[in-house]
Amino acid sequence: MAKKYVYLFGGRGTKAEGNAEMKAALGGKGANLAEMTNIGIPVPPGFTISTEMCTVYYETNGLPKDLKTQVKDAIRKVERAMGLGFGDPEAPLLFSVRSGARASMPGMMDTVLNLGINDDTVHGLIKLSGNERFAYDCYRRFIQMYSDVVMEADSQELEEELENMKHKKGVKLDTELSAEDLKQLVVILKEKVKTLTGRDLPSDPMEQLWGGIEAVFRSWNTPRAITYRKLNSIPDEWGTAVNVQAMVFGNMGDNSATGVAFTRDPATGENVFYGEYLPNAQGEDVVAGIRTPMPINIQGRHEPSQVSLEELMSDQYKQLVDVYQTLENHYRDMQDIEFTIQEGNLWMLQTRTGKRTAAAAVSIAVDMVEEGLISKEEAVLRVNPDQIDQLLHPQIDPNADKEIIGKGLPASPGAAVGRVVFSADDAEVEAGKGEKVILVRIETSPEDIHGMNVAEGVLTARGGMTSHAAVVARGMGKCCVSGCQDLTIDYTTQVSTLGGRKIKKGDFITLDGTTGEVMLGKCPTVKPTLSGSFGTIMEWADKIRQLGVRTNADTPHDSQVARDFGAEGIGLCRTEHMFFEGERILAVREMILAEDEEGRRATLDKIKPMQKGDFKAIFEVMNGLPVTVRLLDPPLHEFLPHTDDEIAEVANSLKKPAEEIKAKRDSLHEANPMLGHRGCRLGITYPEIYEMQVRAIMEAACEASKQGIKVEPEIMIPLVGHVNELKILRKMTVEVAEEIMKTQGVTLEYKVGTMIELPRAALTADQIAEQAEFFSFGTNDLTQTTFGLSRDDAGKFLPVYVDKKILPKDPFMAIDQEGVGELVRIGVEKGRTTRPNLKVGICGEHGGEPSSIDFCHRVGLNYVSCSPYRVPIARLAAAHAALNNKK
Amino acid sequence: MAKKYVYLFGGRGTKAEGNAEMKAALGGKGANLAEMTNIGIPVPPGFTISTEMCTVYYETNGLPKDLKTQVKDAIRKVERAMGLGFGDPEAPLLFSVRSGARASMPGMMDTVLNLGINDDTVHGLIKLSGNERFAYDCYRRFIQMYSDVVMEADSQELEEELENMKHKKGVKLDTELSAEDLKQLVVILKEKVKTLTGRDLPSDPMEQLWGGIEAVFRSWNTPRAITYRKLNSIPDEWGTAVNVQAMVFGNMGDNSATGVAFTRDPATGENVFYGEYLPNAQGEDVVAGIRTPMPINIQGRHEPSQVSLEELMSDQYKQLVDVYQTLENHYRDMQDIEFTIQEGNLWMLQTRTGKRTAAAAVSIAVDMVEEGLISKEEAVLRVNPDQIDQLLHPQIDPNADKEIIGKGLPASPGAAVGRVVFSADDAEVEAGKGEKVILVRIETSPEDIHGMNVAEGVLTARGGMTSHAAVVARGMGKCCVSGCQDLTIDYTTQVSTLGGRKIKKGDFITLDGTTGEVMLGKCPTVKPTLSGSFGTIMEWADKIRQLGVRTNADTPHDSQVARDFGAEGIGLCRTEHMFFEGERILAVREMILAEDEEGRRATLDKIKPMQKGDFKAIFEVMNGLPVTVRLLDPPLHEFLPHTDDEIAEVANSLKKPAEEIKAKRDSLHEANPMLGHRGCRLGITYPEIYEMQVRAIMEAACEASKQGIKVEPEIMIPLVGHVNELKILRKMTVEVAEEIMKTQGVTLEYKVGTMIELPRAALTADQIAEQAEFFSFGTNDLTQTTFGLSRDDAGKFLPVYVDKKILPKDPFMAIDQEGVGELVRIGVEKGRTTRPNLKVGICGEHGGEPSSIDFCHRVGLNYVSCSPYRVPIARLAAAHAALNNKK
Repeated sequence: MAKKYVYLFGGRGTKAEGNAEMKAALGGKGANLAEMTNIGIPVPPGFTISTEMCTVYYETNGLPKDLKTQVKDAIRKVERAMGLGFGDPEAPLLFSVRSGARASMPGMMDTVLNLGINDDTVHGLIKLSGNERFAYDCYRRFIQMYSDVVMEADSQELEEELENMKHKKGVKLDTELSAEDLKQLVVILKEKVKTLTGRDLPSDPMEQLWGGIEAVFRSWNTPRAITYRKLNSIPDEWGTAVNVQAMVFGNMGDNSATGVAFTRDPATGENVFYGEYLPNAQGEDVVAGIRTPMPINIQGRHEPSQVSLEELMSDQYKQLVDVYQTLENHYRDMQDIEFTIQEGNLWMLQTRTGKRTAAAAVSIAVDMVEEGLISKEEAVLRVNPDQIDQLLHPQIDPNADKEIIGKGLPASPGAAVGRVVFSADDAEVEAGKGEKVILVRIETSPEDIHGMNVAEGVLTARGGMTSHAAVVARGMGKCCVSGCQDLTIDYTTQVSTLGGRKIKKGDFITLDGTTGEVMLGKCPTVKPTLSGSFGTIMEWADKIRQLGVRTNADTPHDSQVARDFGAEGIGLCRTEHMFFEGERILAVREMILAEDEEGRRATLDKIKPMQKGDFKAIFEVMNGLPVTVRLLDPPLHEFLPHTDDEIAEVANSLKKPAEEIKAKRDSLHEANPMLGHRGCRLGITYPEIYEMQVRAIMEAACEASKQGIKVEPEIMIPLVGHVNELKILRKMTVEVAEEIMKTQGVTLEYKVGTMIELPRAALTADQIAEQAEFFSFGTNDLTQTTFGLSRDDAGKFLPVYVDKKILPKDPFMAIDQEGVGELVRIGVEKGRTTRPNLKVGICGEHGGEPSSIDFCHRVGLNYVSCSPYRVPIARLAAAHAALNNKK
Repeated sequence: MAKKYVYLFGGRGTKAEGNAEMKAALGGKGANLAEMTNIGIPVPPGFTISTEMCTVYYETNGLPKDLKTQVKDAIRKVERAMGLGFGDPEAPLLFSVRSGARASMPGMMDTVLNLGINDDTVHGLIKLSGNERFAYDCYRRFIQMYSDVVMEADSQELEEELENMKHKKGVKLDTELSAEDLKQLVVILKEKVKTLTGRDLPSDPMEQLWGGIEAVFRSWNTPRAITYRKLNSIPDEWGTAVNVQAMVFGNMGDNSATGVAFTRDPATGENVFYGEYLPNAQGEDVVAGIRTPMPINIQGRHEPSQVSLEELMSDQYKQLVDVYQTLENHYRDMQDIEFTIQEGNLWMLQTRTGKRTAAAAVSIAVDMVEEGLISKEEAVLRVNPDQIDQLLHPQIDPNADKEIIGKGLPASPGAAVGRVVFSADDAEVEAGKGEKVILVRIETSPEDIHGMNVAEGVLTARGGMTSHAAVVARGMGKCCVSGCQDLTIDYTTQVSTLGGRKIKKGDFITLDGTTGEVMLGKCPTVKPTLSGSFGTIMEWADKIRQLGVRTNADTPHDSQVARDFGAEGIGLCRTEHMFFEGERILAVREMILAEDEEGRRATLDKIKPMQKGDFKAIFEVMNGLPVTVRLLDPPLHEFLPHTDDEIAEVANSLKKPAEEIKAKRDSLHEANPMLGHRGCRLGITYPEIYEMQVRAIMEAACEASKQGIKVEPEIMIPLVGHVNELKILRKMTVEVAEEIMKTQGVTLEYKVGTMIELPRAALTADQIAEQAEFFSFGTNDLTQTTFGLSRDDAGKFLPVYVDKKILPKDPFMAIDQEGVGELVRIGVEKGRTTRPNLKVGICGEHGGEPSSIDFCHRVGLNYVSCSPYRVPIARLAAAHAALNNKK
């Protein structure tokens, strides 16, 4: 028997062949259309061609015979359900063809509407609708879409013919064109297609349909779709399904409409029905952002002039409310729905779990627990750790003076300050130079994604809350103000105006995505105040997670920020940063230039009080929590000046000949500093440096302790490769520590441990654990050595590797679980064989990345340590890890 | 009961308390003294204080009471056996105190003779010997040795008093001093000791004895002993035993003598009794090289004026022959023995397995198999793989014109050419500059070891075949000519004379350690012709070993040398070396400077024929054997010129502006080139380079094959970290190879594999093996990444690490089995899970190092690959590994 590729859905009072569980085969849209059918929601009948066919299509470069038979059978069934015939000149059935992948890829792939229309069936459509203008409008839309998507004609050229016609007729809007105008336009457009492509637009409905289906499959591999998948980690192998569905028309006159809605507010999470619609329009008009739509209900109105669906068609609105409540209860999550009202009949075209801002995600999750819809665990899982980043970033200072020059829709919350650019390419160029930029566009399209990705925020003149710009920006957690109607942009002169002010490329503006306000210049920003729901989710997360969360912080300020964000200690306090500050760097340089140990000790005596002050201030902030201090790590040459000017300056300050400094710099030069004379190798060859640092830490700890501060210093020796290194340095550390505690008359709990950042350390962790009370995996360096990859140099080929999918992800962003992770696993396992109570953490940048945190949980680490702003992300990700890995 | 620290041995017709198996406790000397006692050899009675006491001594800084009791008991037994009393003024027993570690450390540690002599007992000695002169000579020797070894007085100062006395008496030799002279000298020396040390020389025999015992323990930790242990991998924990033995005197007159002998010729291995003796002398006189000794038998005479022991004391000689034969049969190995004849009575003072040259080791091993003494396996184990290096190095061309200016003893074979230096320190300085040096000394001492270690050869004016210089040089496998009596050296003016010629520091000389000849200037050398015994041992080794042995060779010449040495294929043919030759480097630079792929392909077309020629020539030499070719590995900037002059030259040749070349060099600069854009990363980003190389290899292979050469090319992709890299490059390689074979109409067996030189590759070897038919562990780079250690930079701290014993050995010399080795083990194990017949080798420099080869055997590699001259070493080491790891 032939394999089943085609699955029916829709119609009223029937069951579908698929269901919501079948997303892998039917795609998200297809599975949900089937599910809606099964729970009695009115869905226009149609069928889904499974994702498997996409793979077949790419393998065989065509569609198999089996499929043709199955599609023809399905069409017959849809014809029966609708009482219409595909290609029937009397009562024509038209189809939409839409892509539908497993994961949502909004606006990424192609859609063709009104398939089946031609010079014959258009008359049947006139007869059915009694509306000639509508029928020809369908026809000209079909020609424009089909020639663009299937025949790859330049859509701009066809759009121009539409503009010409409007110009000729002296009208401004498409809707002002008459049936006769559109009839003429159909002829003109068909000729234009022939001219542009050398081919006739097919008039045979079946030919049109196959063209549409193939175009959807082809659209899976457009560059923009590939980019989107890469950004969102969607596997290429998944492929897309194709949904072929009977057309219903929101543009059949004033008793027709089309719209999109969210079952709750996707920006704030508030439990209100929230959506937009356009009367007498096709669905694409709403999401394409060409006409600015109106609010679905009275509550949603921004201006008194707007008329909501609730007012315009109250019966259908009530029916829609019933449907959305059924859907939300069924799916137990906020839904993003599309509907069309054709001559008073409501049809649901799509439902899916709605994208939402982090704030909304948090609020909805907590609300739904209170509503009894979901459990606390589900609520925690509903909030994406990566996304909450946006909640943690600054907002505009409410007390700031701000020159508001315009207002748009609050499409994606947060504040953004940056220089204006008018194209995605410019955004990339300027951001590449380190500039913060705001992308300002009339509207955005999928071609702009790379620019949105690097921009601080996005401002558009057109488009609503569900426009491309708004949806994509929310997904990215980026501030966006959309539909700022006063905004004019001249792309040629690179000048825009708003509120009577000229804004040129490079000028600073500020966006407030929470209010929709646009300000001239740079507004001051403040730390976000986190909502009560956020605190609730975090509290639940903390109860669930098993991993501790610490922070990487080198200053009292960063330590305080992290502690406010819930950090349970410092996992990595780097001491070298302290060496670079102010006068210290001079003392450090003097130390490096000293001729012998005695000279070094003399200058180290100058540095010690400063280091001690640093540590004491940090201990005070972290009162009651452990603080892991890493002893000096970088090679000494990093502290020396490099250019001749800098050398001259230092020579002058230190009253030493420049030649001497140059000679020292040259003698310290290394071919591969990453693999050089650094970390504990310095501690071995210049014991006096580490000794000074241990003294500074322990003296600070003792003094703080005497002042009633609870200190838990953990002294960490970096870059250990052989247990003997640690043995020597641990001995020194313990001797110094004991001596200081004795002198100061204080007894402290302190620990001595090591970074595991070399493969050899992980491989011999059983030996090393005998000398270490804790391990902290330094996965930045461990990634460099395990891959044999210098982070400084990898820019020349690592992007190519990620592009060509040689590496699934940049291993400096997300831990490489197979390689680097294997060493972590070995290190933990071996370490605990000789010291079962070994405390093990991670302090590489991976410590704040959710997939890496999941790995850390699985491998049995005690804690992760990350930058202060990522602490809440790590807390939540740790809870996800605990839940997702429950047996 | 108290622990037993003291073990009796010696005397006639008794058994000892120890035996040869107890080396760990008794040291080599003590165990053998006991063993000799047990097999009926005459040994002066005495006792051994076990090595354990050395540890106790260092732990407690003294000697326990238990020991004192046991020693006193033992003394009483020795007194009885000798019929003498320790401290008895009538019939005094004197003792020697000698160190005796588990491993032989010739000349490294201290000895004191004649303990028990004082102003009273000297009279008893006169009475017993009837020889006053002898008695006072013993006394003055005792004072000199004891004050030096135990009291740390400057021995030179005491030596001067002896010289003064000779001067005063107008004599030249010590032996010309009369009893009265010596009696006076004893008084003078005792006063001198008091002046130098502030203490009286102890006269109490027991006090003398304890001083001697402690001095021996102390001598375990002298700097020279520590250095020696480090050079010879002897653990510090072993400690030394102390042998206290009744003195017998070779200097009791003309019917007394002392000597050392080897049961076979230690230089050639010839089965002749070989030794030296001095009549009327103490043993130290022979080994210290102060008087040049005479041959033990007629066969050994170099000059007619010499009188052998065989002639002088034929009975004792015959008895000695009996003893040596008993010993060799008992120990089943060539022995190094010491004896003393006291007034006609033969006493054996020591036997141990004799050190020998590699040639002797080979010859003795083969002979002993033929004599039925040992098995072939034992014979193979008797030859130290490290040592045979000396057999493989050049000898002086027999047809060369050579200006022989002098002749000494052929103390250690081989040829050495170098510039003359007169001190060990100078040797080190000059060798550090890359100069080849010959160390020329009147005699050498343990203080000279560091100089001998870096010298090509050693020439001494004094000392015999068993002098310090000779013994140490043979151990090092270094050429040595000793006892070149015509040689004069003035250390002050740094000028020496020989054969009427002046030789200044820095002049070239040539030594022939096989003949003892010294030549002025540089003599041409030739490859050694290996002896038949060598071939026999190698044949036996080849039958025993399970590891294959290949070579690392990049040229037809090296390939031929390696094949002649028994290489079974090429394990690593580096292609980058080929890029540097002659005009090619210009084409390579042009390729690097090309602006695009097209430009690169054009220049690669120029390089291809040259590469093809290289490969073809190598395939011809290696006819019938596999050849592993590694594709380009170093980063491209290595091929660009660096200095401004070089850049100008290249700019001129390529007719490109220098600025362009500089810009390219700068753009290619890397912070850590070791971890940079190299290896297969080049193959991924510039596929055309690897494609050219694969074409060159396969075209060469096809052409050679058509000419009847049997080729087995193995194409090796370097620096793979992720299986996807290999997947892409393997696909390219196979496509190109198949295309070429099709075009050329040839079918070849070829393999595609990879270097495992990154930790990640080893950790994911299961995945990588799916794409690789073979692995070759590149342990040089693997060591760098596993340790996070740049070979180029490690010079700043690695020596400190080895000195401080943080690392037991330089990991670039011998594989780090715990860390790097663990990755090798993981890689082999995982690789074979997905490809059970995976061929696995090693091509780092470790492939020629015996301890690493043992590891490779244990871990189940198929072959090792090493430099051509190390191939025989690897063959032998592989056989050792097979034998030593038999269950």
